[in-house]
Amino acid sequence: MATRFVSERNIQFLLYEVFDVESLTGYDYYSQHNRKMFDMVLKEAVKLGKDLLFPLFEEMDRKQPELVGGEVKVHPSMKKIIKEFAEGGWLTSTVPFDQDGEQLPNMVADICEFIFAAANYSANAYAGLTKGSSHLIECFGSKDLYETYVPNMRAGKWQGTMALTEPEAGSSLSDVATTAEPTDQGYYAIRGQKIFISAGDHDAAENVVHLMLVKIAGAPAGVKGISLFVVPKYRPGADGTLVSNDVATSGIYHKLGYRGCPIAQLSMGDKNDCRGWLVGEPHQGLKYMFQMMNEARIGVGMGATAMASAAYYAALEYSRSRQQGRKPGQKDPNSPPVAIIEHADVKRMLLLQKAVVEGSLSLLTQCSKYVDYQKVLDGENRQKYNLLLEILTPVAKSYPSEMGNLAISQGLQCLGGSGYCDDYPLEQYYRDCRIHPIHEGTTGVQGMDLLGRKVMMQQGQAFAHYVNELQETIAAAKQDSELAGFAGRLEQALDRLQEVTRHQVAVAEKQGAEVFLADAVLYLEYFGIITIAWQWLLQGIAARKALESGPKKKDRDFYAGKMYALRYFYGYELPKTEGLAARLTDDDKLTAEMGAEAFND
Amino acid sequence: MATRFVSERNIQFLLYEVFDVESLTGYDYYSQHNRKMFDMVLKEAVKLGKDLLFPLFEEMDRKQPELVGGEVKVHPSMKKIIKEFAEGGWLTSTVPFDQDGEQLPNMVADICEFIFAAANYSANAYAGLTKGSSHLIECFGSKDLYETYVPNMRAGKWQGTMALTEPEAGSSLSDVATTAEPTDQGYYAIRGQKIFISAGDHDAAENVVHLMLVKIAGAPAGVKGISLFVVPKYRPGADGTLVSNDVATSGIYHKLGYRGCPIAQLSMGDKNDCRGWLVGEPHQGLKYMFQMMNEARIGVGMGATAMASAAYYAALEYSRSRQQGRKPGQKDPNSPPVAIIEHADVKRMLLLQKAVVEGSLSLLTQCSKYVDYQKVLDGENRQKYNLLLEILTPVAKSYPSEMGNLAISQGLQCLGGSGYCDDYPLEQYYRDCRIHPIHEGTTGVQGMDLLGRKVMMQQGQAFAHYVNELQETIAAAKQDSELAGFAGRLEQALDRLQEVTRHQVAVAEKQGAEVFLADAVLYLEYFGIITIAWQWLLQGIAARKALESGPKKKDRDFYAGKMYALRYFYGYELPKTEGLAARLTDDDKLTAEMGAEAFND
Repeated sequence: MATRFVSERNIQFLLYEVFDVESLTGYDYYSQHNRKMFDMVLKEAVKLGKDLLFPLFEEMDRKQPELVGGEVKVHPSMKKIIKEFAEGGWLTSTVPFDQDGEQLPNMVADICEFIFAAANYSANAYAGLTKGSSHLIECFGSKDLYETYVPNMRAGKWQGTMALTEPEAGSSLSDVATTAEPTDQGYYAIRGQKIFISAGDHDAAENVVHLMLVKIAGAPAGVKGISLFVVPKYRPGADGTLVSNDVATSGIYHKLGYRGCPIAQLSMGDKNDCRGWLVGEPHQGLKYMFQMMNEARIGVGMGATAMASAAYYAALEYSRSRQQGRKPGQKDPNSPPVAIIEHADVKRMLLLQKAVVEGSLSLLTQCSKYVDYQKVLDGENRQKYNLLLEILTPVAKSYPSEMGNLAISQGLQCLGGSGYCDDYPLEQYYRDCRIHPIHEGTTGVQGMDLLGRKVMMQQGQAFAHYVNELQETIAAAKQDSELAGFAGRLEQALDRLQEVTRHQVAVAEKQGAEVFLADAVLYLEYFGIITIAWQWLLQGIAARKALESGPKKKDRDFYAGKMYALRYFYGYELPKTEGLAARLTDDDKLTAEMGAEAFND
Repeated sequence: MATRFVSERNIQFLLYEVFDVESLTGYDYYSQHNRKMFDMVLKEAVKLGKDLLFPLFEEMDRKQPELVGGEVKVHPSMKKIIKEFAEGGWLTSTVPFDQDGEQLPNMVADICEFIFAAANYSANAYAGLTKGSSHLIECFGSKDLYETYVPNMRAGKWQGTMALTEPEAGSSLSDVATTAEPTDQGYYAIRGQKIFISAGDHDAAENVVHLMLVKIAGAPAGVKGISLFVVPKYRPGADGTLVSNDVATSGIYHKLGYRGCPIAQLSMGDKNDCRGWLVGEPHQGLKYMFQMMNEARIGVGMGATAMASAAYYAALEYSRSRQQGRKPGQKDPNSPPVAIIEHADVKRMLLLQKAVVEGSLSLLTQCSKYVDYQKVLDGENRQKYNLLLEILTPVAKSYPSEMGNLAISQGLQCLGGSGYCDDYPLEQYYRDCRIHPIHEGTTGVQGMDLLGRKVMMQQGQAFAHYVNELQETIAAAKQDSELAGFAGRLEQALDRLQEVTRHQVAVAEKQGAEVFLADAVLYLEYFGIITIAWQWLLQGIAARKALESGPKKKDRDFYAGKMYALRYFYGYELPKTEGLAARLTDDDKLTAEMGAEAFND
């Protein structure tokens, strides 16, 4: 029914008008690229999404992966999809030229990910995992590991995974219990269980390469004893043949959504023949894994934004074509009904979706730009963008995940009863998106990361850089009389954020970690709204600039839409910070104080 | 996995300690009842829920209704369930003694509905529809119609429905196009289509009796031309045999949830042989239907509360048993993990659920009490409680529907990845509950009903009564030093609500209906939060009274839990009204002003 999943016009706006991706080509590392090439890449991504991924979106949900005789069977099209990803260079888009990659700016490559995820999130997840895990081997593995695994992964032949979670180690990774016994053969004997492993086993790849958190026998307790291993499903023999590596798939999950991608339970070493190879140094595993984890968190934010994007366009299409009711004040029952997009409340629901989708995509592109800057700058500048990325990662993961679910719910609501039925895709987006506040660190984990770690890190330097970035945007927006009011409101909100943050830091000092972190999720929500308000002001600056240049009717509508979404965000979303700030400065720390027995009845 | 779906202790608290249902037995109409009987009824309801309904909750989702050769097959247990409902007197619990009913107070009967819906919403929906539609015939139908249909419906043999929606008449009922041509045989010839008809056809009943909105040929356009008809699937012949009445089931929907109950598309008169019988006067159909609709709206709020209740107890059970992580500040990785209910953020998520479930159930019981008062009082008092019920109906429908979805989402979140999988019931509650903001009038429709009709009705009398009710509770709470602070905050919020309402009324006068109603959904949300804050203060008064009487440890925990939930609501939910009030007094009426072309890109 739906025919669109992204706005190419909006992608152009963000890349060229808001974030000026072309400016990157002024740096050596990206000097071989130009706008024409970026546009070609983007066009190819949209084509792949439209021709191959999007048509399979529904079918991959209806025909779920199955575990048959210990083998996971996925949709038969997955082989072709992975092949096209590999052949199109999509698995190596940010890999340097000297490793046969395309060395594209992250800003462009990440937007391509967004396009794929909007077309078919499950299908893209396989590729994302292979990219992240091969990058991990590239960064921290030996030459030997690199040569054995990475080319096959980048060729799309071998699937990569991140294997962290265990039955007794979910949010608490320090309790990882999978063990590695050293041998004198250069490998370790692995034994244990992993659960919730995305793309953890399937028949569309010849092999599966797990990047696995494991404790070496005798390692210190807690996170300091975790090491990173490569544990393949089949280990390559000396002659290149693949030998079973005693990694059994003991189950797959039946999930609410995200059904195109299998999530597996793995059992290693049941036959005492599971081998793993250490990546980097012993006991540094969590640090290494956090490279992939941070990429994956941004990827989750992107995935949530992508689903909310596709859902938005489906709701928009329906709202334009569905005729129902009349405007308030139209009393004549014989007058023709209007398209529901004419109703103020439907416009409000669509604006919420637009504001969340385009605001989140703006933030994610901002993050991609910081990644790019780290590749082309050094010294203090590099450090600054690294800190900005650090502090924004929990926000870029959680805001789209939480608000993406609400946005999709509003999209479903635009369709009324039809939104609840599977003749339309909204119910699937609603199911699919619910994974995002959970995987790669729940919203609770992100809240503690932001408030307990990132805000405080390096004597608050990351936070100070963040405040500076917003202040720069505020100062620029104040130059334009149409934006000055919004800039003033963001300035006030930012001042209040700093007050609230100081209050929280004082709580940490006086009342300890538990009280301090009790409302970390609310702090994250609060911080997120202000961050997206910043992104909307940035977009407002670009839109106003374009409007002043006297654009054509079609562009005028587009920029006017940006200004409406900005007004929506400042009118409907930013005021939510008032209640959150009130709560975050309230002294009633009931959740820290309350005993579990008060839930008895 | 989960073993509970309601708290019997909380039901006792609401019925006896907060709302004093026993006081009703002082009125003639309820004088035959006493507490012992109420307790027996409640115990029977819980037993039926536990023994029959709850064990089928998951299975009825997995084995969905099917349309086979024009016949809808539902879960084979539905026959038994309907039989037990009928034999247990559950279809006639509020029917007067002189019609062989139990004449129970609505407060008790509605709590029984809550129990059934919490055990298995889909199964209870069949019964709810039969009760509502037979009541409609009882109130407005002829003696003949009553005798032909009502006894069979109340015996559970015939299913009742409400048949309103059509392909081109969803939220806009004025566009109903199903027609009735009068004949000289006492019936009308019906022709048309109805869609989204819950329990609209199935093989667990011998017949289906549709209470249908239809336009008599030549009727005025719009809602003034709508009449109410009884249109059975099989019409009873003179000898009592059933003859097919040309009502064809043209399809059933595949839905996100609520799968135990079939939702049908019906086609009437394809063979020119569909007969309908007028209920009451011509062109009064919508007025009559609103009796059932208002009951159904309260029923939806109850259903949403019930699902959120069952989800809450499932999440609570998991949070008590699942061990994961350590308290902040506990640095020793060798220390044992704690149950996740010990984590402040999990307590916050559980408190949100508790506050929504118990706050909503309190409001719904308040509404039931108003229904009871209308049965036992007359004159001005009766009118007062009627107005209170009118103004609270959109709130009692929407607050639980909207917040129930968020509460269940938080319940799912408590389980992390397990919440996303169908080994646990949370994902089903999440799917099931999403229907509630849609059916029986969307949240958008409820917003317009509250702000556009109820707040203004009879020169604002309903609103004035509402303010009085809250003020009485505030005054009572101020007598207790432990509650005075909360009472003061509700008083402030109520003052602000009155200001905001005056502002809205001024907008209606100066800027017209479209601008006035543009943010009606936000007004509904705002009004809802304040209403539930009132209900929590009422519960606080009862809890404090009990705590002062020196209760036993078990009761002390229960009442302490009430006080924590009250603190949660005033600390975390009530502050949300600040942002909403800011928005509702903001002059930027962008959604009324914006043209649809600004969504172009």
